[in-house]
Amino acid sequence: MGKEITSREQDYSQWYNDLIIKGNLADYSAVRGCMVIKPYGFALWENMRDVLDKMFKDTGHQNAYFPLFVPKSLFEAEEKNAEGFAKECAVVTHYRLKTDPNNKGKLIVDPEAKLEEELVVRPTSEAIIWNTYKGWIQSYRDLPLLINQWANVVRWEMRTRLFLRTAEFLWQEGHTAHATAEEAIEETKRMLDVYADFAENWMALPVIKGVKSPNERFAGAEDTYCIEALMQDGKALQAGTSHFLGQNFAKAFDVKFSDKQNKLDYVWATSWGVSTRLIGGLVMAHSDDDGLILPPRIAPVQVVIVPIYKGEEQKAQIDEVVHQMKKEMVALGISVKYDDSDNSRPGWKFAEYELKGVPVRIAVGARDLENKVVEVARRDTKEKQTIPLEGIASFVHSLLNNIQVSMFNKAKAFQQENIRTANSWDEFVQILDTKAGFVSAHWDGTAETEDKIKELTKATIRCIPLDNPQEEGQCILSGKKSTQRVLFARAY
Amino acid sequence: MGKEITSREQDYSQWYNDLIIKGNLADYSAVRGCMVIKPYGFALWENMRDVLDKMFKDTGHQNAYFPLFVPKSLFEAEEKNAEGFAKECAVVTHYRLKTDPNNKGKLIVDPEAKLEEELVVRPTSEAIIWNTYKGWIQSYRDLPLLINQWANVVRWEMRTRLFLRTAEFLWQEGHTAHATAEEAIEETKRMLDVYADFAENWMALPVIKGVKSPNERFAGAEDTYCIEALMQDGKALQAGTSHFLGQNFAKAFDVKFSDKQNKLDYVWATSWGVSTRLIGGLVMAHSDDDGLILPPRIAPVQVVIVPIYKGEEQKAQIDEVVHQMKKEMVALGISVKYDDSDNSRPGWKFAEYELKGVPVRIAVGARDLENKVVEVARRDTKEKQTIPLEGIASFVHSLLNNIQVSMFNKAKAFQQENIRTANSWDEFVQILDTKAGFVSAHWDGTAETEDKIKELTKATIRCIPLDNPQEEGQCILSGKKSTQRVLFARAY
Repeated sequence: MGKEITSREQDYSQWYNDLIIKGNLADYSAVRGCMVIKPYGFALWENMRDVLDKMFKDTGHQNAYFPLFVPKSLFEAEEKNAEGFAKECAVVTHYRLKTDPNNKGKLIVDPEAKLEEELVVRPTSEAIIWNTYKGWIQSYRDLPLLINQWANVVRWEMRTRLFLRTAEFLWQEGHTAHATAEEAIEETKRMLDVYADFAENWMALPVIKGVKSPNERFAGAEDTYCIEALMQDGKALQAGTSHFLGQNFAKAFDVKFSDKQNKLDYVWATSWGVSTRLIGGLVMAHSDDDGLILPPRIAPVQVVIVPIYKGEEQKAQIDEVVHQMKKEMVALGISVKYDDSDNSRPGWKFAEYELKGVPVRIAVGARDLENKVVEVARRDTKEKQTIPLEGIASFVHSLLNNIQVSMFNKAKAFQQENIRTANSWDEFVQILDTKAGFVSAHWDGTAETEDKIKELTKATIRCIPLDNPQEEGQCILSGKKSTQRVLFARAY
Repeated sequence: MGKEITSREQDYSQWYNDLIIKGNLADYSAVRGCMVIKPYGFALWENMRDVLDKMFKDTGHQNAYFPLFVPKSLFEAEEKNAEGFAKECAVVTHYRLKTDPNNKGKLIVDPEAKLEEELVVRPTSEAIIWNTYKGWIQSYRDLPLLINQWANVVRWEMRTRLFLRTAEFLWQEGHTAHATAEEAIEETKRMLDVYADFAENWMALPVIKGVKSPNERFAGAEDTYCIEALMQDGKALQAGTSHFLGQNFAKAFDVKFSDKQNKLDYVWATSWGVSTRLIGGLVMAHSDDDGLILPPRIAPVQVVIVPIYKGEEQKAQIDEVVHQMKKEMVALGISVKYDDSDNSRPGWKFAEYELKGVPVRIAVGARDLENKVVEVARRDTKEKQTIPLEGIASFVHSLLNNIQVSMFNKAKAFQQENIRTANSWDEFVQILDTKAGFVSAHWDGTAETEDKIKELTKATIRCIPLDNPQEEGQCILSGKKSTQRVLFARAY
């Protein structure tokens, strides 16, 4: 009847692609590794962006916009950052095309229009921003400087996947400057909390807050904080990061401020970001074999109403009732779509809105109207109920809240069931191979061991959870002494 | 006392730059021709964007996002469009940097990471979008397709000016697909009306709606509609364009649809855009020698309140009154800033907020409170009034409306005074050289004459106004027969 979706069991990866493409979230493009975000997917991103944007503003941040291009000499100034991103940079070398003398109607790059200095398409904006901050910060009075940017960035990844890893993606990047290390660390944690709040209370996506191991740190950071989510296949997904950058960028770009005692010091920095990757996480955390399941608080359409009728007269009666019902729902802040298009049958529409993950579907039939009821179906559990028309708007309003909570609880239970403790190497490998999920295990704290574990199992340290209990133990690989467990997982 | 601004008379161009830089709207960047939009400037852009976005959605459009890069082979598909933009394209040729073996800590472009096909950084997105639409449109049921994108674009202009002409700028670009030429033309005009509505009723910027001469058309368009505004120095500024693209892009990308009779035909297209350039127009149309003057409906801060006091006790009394006053204003939807920072004196603050163009300033002194009044100053006319505290919020609310209307009326009167009729070449040149503004004159309709006039006077045909009266006459340059007057001006 509807579009066919590969089941999770059959091919998890194809299931994901089917949801994205057939659910109308995104499409492939003619540019290697880049995607087109379709209107339905973009409406979802707009909802997410608007909520985050308000959270950033409520915590004192302002938006600004910095150039897309980073001159190579600035890009290389902070060495670790440059080294970390050099291998995946799109580089602009010329500024003009000209007609091909040997090929009518075709263009070639004009060799005479070579740039004196190449421009890197930003993979992240620390370099261009800290070079700008140099002109904006002189005194402690200019601090803190709390700025966020919504932008596109480009990282030339070799293997790409819709939303999860694309050459170009949309994100926000916060870049703040502070007078002390303490304030910067406080900001780093504050924004991690904002991300966790957003993931859990809006995306219904439970996350673990933690700190990355040095191996997994952002290039140029002193510490990377992260939120880690769990997908239905037991793989982890890094959903957001917040970096304490120390004075690394201030030193690379010579950004000093005079404090109250008129003493000069380098400025302390943070940066933090989430991206359209979150949409990939959202899809993989909640959806089922029939399609997307979107949390009501960010769903582009919260309620769809489908009429079931024969003939114009019945249609007119239904229209009248729906019109009133819709008005009442809109007054409660619910986004409603009445799909009375006549080029597809109700069954097809049901399947289509299930595929698109619309949280609540209301079917209104002629016989229902006689009984003054409608049929309400929730997408997450697929339960159907017959509900009196009287008071339907407030019923739906609280149903949407229930769905939001219930989606979070379900995902939270799944997450909790999938954090397992391993006390030996065999146990560690067995859990990864048979159950996946997070494995809590002792690690000796060395990059060497971490690399070895990754090589042997493809699992990485996702994070050292915040407020991690200190506990003596032995590293599962090296057997050396360890002071705490960390969370391993295979990850996207 | 405040920051120094060059006067318009002294150096109009420097005056403009002073307002942008010292008014904290934008800053120069390390990238040639690219600017940094500072938080205050970006807040202004956000307000403009949000209003426009709502207008687009209210007229049935949805947002989406398409790749930043356009493969060269797609870029060159629509020949006129390609030819028009080829000379100003930033081109990505490589996807990796590597460490310079001869220069420790430096990076070079990795010659082994050359792209097989170069990527053009989008100067506009018709090519990549119509290549995508090919996959989305099969039947008349898929039409109209009404999509808008908010994005950054890059045009490698040789001479750049903050906001008015920058290598990278932010804009929106609508791209729609229709079943008939009539519908596409209707859409082109509808969006022109949206732009005119926005310019006049939100930016307080009167515009003339018209059609471009073939010379000034968008590359690849059949017709370019535009809104033209007038700056205080008498130069015109193209503030927005809406293009009827005919079937040019559909043919270039082979986008056909089957109509109700199952007959195949190429799709009809429009595109339309406005950009951060509008901010430049806003600044130049309204501001004075003391700084920016922003229309209340889009000003980031509508009202600033400055306390005038001696000692903590007076301050506490003022705080209490302001707190209440602010609450009442916020309840009326007014955006208010209470600047009680103690590191600058009231006089300095007054100058600072005049520079920033905040529409209304309220000064609250201890003596005022005894008399239960405050001093209200409007930025546009600089009038000051003593107003009773009682009812101050609703007074300010209607004052903001008055300022909005009065700014528009002032600009409208200026525009009307500066549309002059020339009936001979001498008259034409004399008006341009002594008074500037728009000159309404007969033109023989040929590109040759238009080019010649531009060469001789630097004036271009800004537009043929919509509903232009037909009137027989003689071309001011060639003396040939003409059927209507058109509007000439020197322009930004």
